[in-house]
Amino acid sequence: MDAITQAAGQLAERIEALGQVTDTPGALTRTFLSPANLAAAAMVSRWMEELGMTVEHDAGGTIRGILAGTAGDLPPLLLGSHLDTVIDAGKYDGALGVLTALAALQVTGPLPFPVHVLGFSDEEGVRFHATYLGSRACVGQLGTEAMEIRDFAGVSLAEALGKEGWNEGATRFSYEDSACLAYVELHIEQGRVLEELGEAVCGVSAICGQSRLAVGLIGQADHAGTTPMEIRRDALAGAAACILAAERCGRSDPLLVATVGKLDLRPGASNAIPGEVKFTLDFRHPDDACRERLLGELLAEFEAIAADRGLKLAWDLVQANPAVPCDPGLTERLLDAIELVTGGRRLLPSGAGHDAVMMATAMPVAMVFVRCRDGLSHHPDEYASPDDMAAGLRVLVGFLQDISKS
Amino acid sequence: MDAITQAAGQLAERIEALGQVTDTPGALTRTFLSPANLAAAAMVSRWMEELGMTVEHDAGGTIRGILAGTAGDLPPLLLGSHLDTVIDAGKYDGALGVLTALAALQVTGPLPFPVHVLGFSDEEGVRFHATYLGSRACVGQLGTEAMEIRDFAGVSLAEALGKEGWNEGATRFSYEDSACLAYVELHIEQGRVLEELGEAVCGVSAICGQSRLAVGLIGQADHAGTTPMEIRRDALAGAAACILAAERCGRSDPLLVATVGKLDLRPGASNAIPGEVKFTLDFRHPDDACRERLLGELLAEFEAIAADRGLKLAWDLVQANPAVPCDPGLTERLLDAIELVTGGRRLLPSGAGHDAVMMATAMPVAMVFVRCRDGLSHHPDEYASPDDMAAGLRVLVGFLQDISKS
Repeated sequence: MDAITQAAGQLAERIEALGQVTDTPGALTRTFLSPANLAAAAMVSRWMEELGMTVEHDAGGTIRGILAGTAGDLPPLLLGSHLDTVIDAGKYDGALGVLTALAALQVTGPLPFPVHVLGFSDEEGVRFHATYLGSRACVGQLGTEAMEIRDFAGVSLAEALGKEGWNEGATRFSYEDSACLAYVELHIEQGRVLEELGEAVCGVSAICGQSRLAVGLIGQADHAGTTPMEIRRDALAGAAACILAAERCGRSDPLLVATVGKLDLRPGASNAIPGEVKFTLDFRHPDDACRERLLGELLAEFEAIAADRGLKLAWDLVQANPAVPCDPGLTERLLDAIELVTGGRRLLPSGAGHDAVMMATAMPVAMVFVRCRDGLSHHPDEYASPDDMAAGLRVLVGFLQDISKS
Repeated sequence: MDAITQAAGQLAERIEALGQVTDTPGALTRTFLSPANLAAAAMVSRWMEELGMTVEHDAGGTIRGILAGTAGDLPPLLLGSHLDTVIDAGKYDGALGVLTALAALQVTGPLPFPVHVLGFSDEEGVRFHATYLGSRACVGQLGTEAMEIRDFAGVSLAEALGKEGWNEGATRFSYEDSACLAYVELHIEQGRVLEELGEAVCGVSAICGQSRLAVGLIGQADHAGTTPMEIRRDALAGAAACILAAERCGRSDPLLVATVGKLDLRPGASNAIPGEVKFTLDFRHPDDACRERLLGELLAEFEAIAADRGLKLAWDLVQANPAVPCDPGLTERLLDAIELVTGGRRLLPSGAGHDAVMMATAMPVAMVFVRCRDGLSHHPDEYASPDDMAAGLRVLVGFLQDISKS
């Protein structure tokens, strides 16, 4: 058995072991500063120590294992992902990135440059409804304002860190003040594209920018039996036209996704013409200018639909996040490693957000995706096969060995 | 002041007076066998007696005023509507038909044939979720099976009639066993057509047949960010195509109305592609063969939409009621009377059901519609203007005088 095969076997075992560390028996849940979240950090810390790493933690429970470099004073390469989960989660989202980093270093041993493996304590944002708390803290993005956000119980982030934090021996990780080679994150795809393509791993071009809108249409509620079609102002028929317009818009650009995921209507009776409809629009593209242009075109189409039907249209931009491009040079090196494993140089945009979004505020980032079954994530049936995890491991090992040469 | 103007004034006053008789202070509600429903029947009974009518009631609280004919033993003409209301109702729906009948007889005095004015105790079906209980009882359509239906409290119709019924001195009205000239009902339109046309009253061609369907579409719930458009099976986008197909179908025939009034989707999150949608379809046409043919065409279109999108379609026919045509000869006589009032011979289908549906099982029926503001009914803002009520009264008086001559 070669070293990679052996490390891949241990990786699969560790995914299972870490998947047992939960706050809720029978379901996997590890949220910010919960006992299971800190227990998971402690478990991974021990595995880091077994690799000869120096292990540190911050007050929020993010851990860092440092493997010293062999070539003197070089900027470190950062690897990692997050150790928290959603409620009733799968075992791979986040954990796979941290554990694959450790498995890769077990194969490669120390590299010329230092390697930091990070296990972030919050990416999902379950407790405080604010994502990336772990990586935000590492790049100086958790300011005094963020300290005031509160969880469902009314506890502020500052209070939680003070009372529940892992304060003993805590270090503050301040990557915003230091030069780093890059942050490289491996993650399950959370989509079905690799499965449809029959490919185990791929690179990531960018983490998509996202616009989230709340759209409302107001027409007139009328009796379904007594109101002829030609005098209706049916808000649901108008919404249907908007939904199909959003779909056409999404299909007009292969990198765009446009989704109406939620829809409410009033009065909502089988014999009443809907007078009011509210729906959400989720709009993502790896290129911000494209996203904004296409969204503008779609909203103009919504306006035309509403005007044509005598409906009143209102929309709110609930959220807008810019895209985070992955570093082209690093990504080429990752694709080199991917090509050796899959024969292809597949590059996909990431429709979901990742810790790399925050780390990109301080350094170049790059990402590797590993195929997951049915595109399922945030679900107990989330699954990446041992072969696909091994493929991800081979890519990371190949990449580390490649950049160690230059 | 002529007799009709005087009767119209009294009619408007009585609408207000009857509109005060309610089970719920501050809102108009009179449901089957409720204290207010029986109090309304008693109030109208007194007005019938003032006209010299013989007044009877059945156990369910339906009242009948009989004005004897002047020309010996002729079959009676029936007039009327219902005295029950929905919850938080308007004052005109039902009541206007009963009170206009009384006002017309006040103007005409006794006619050659007997006239029965009926005030049905249940048309809305609020208490037992079964409509037309009043008129059903009058035409022998309340069999032993109907006696077993239960209200929200679990009380059967048989129990309600036994314990709460107006049993003292009750008569059973058995129109199924007797020859009658016709049942003629005046009712607010409950739609906006007369308002759009600027006409106060019209005749009714038929009460539309209705098909009610529950439609389900199953696709695949996926992550809105990570699932490219081309591999989605979005149940909501499929439903949107069906909703627009239903609208196109409704517009293809001026007598058809097709409505999607209710829609539920799952999982129903802004960042999740809807995997499952359920919606209602309400489909009405005055001609049954047309309704069935057009519905068949629409469902074939739904099938094609689902097949094209990789969705699973299921539909249930929840209810199917045949159309009830109004008697052409009687309706021509009503149109003669309408023409004298409005100058036109407008004939509309009724998209809503009425007591005439049940009465048609035993005799010819005809109907007059009176314009109501904004098409609003089943709502406290329901309103017919005094002028429009007077126009309805003039039509009924003209019609009665006309058929009295022949």
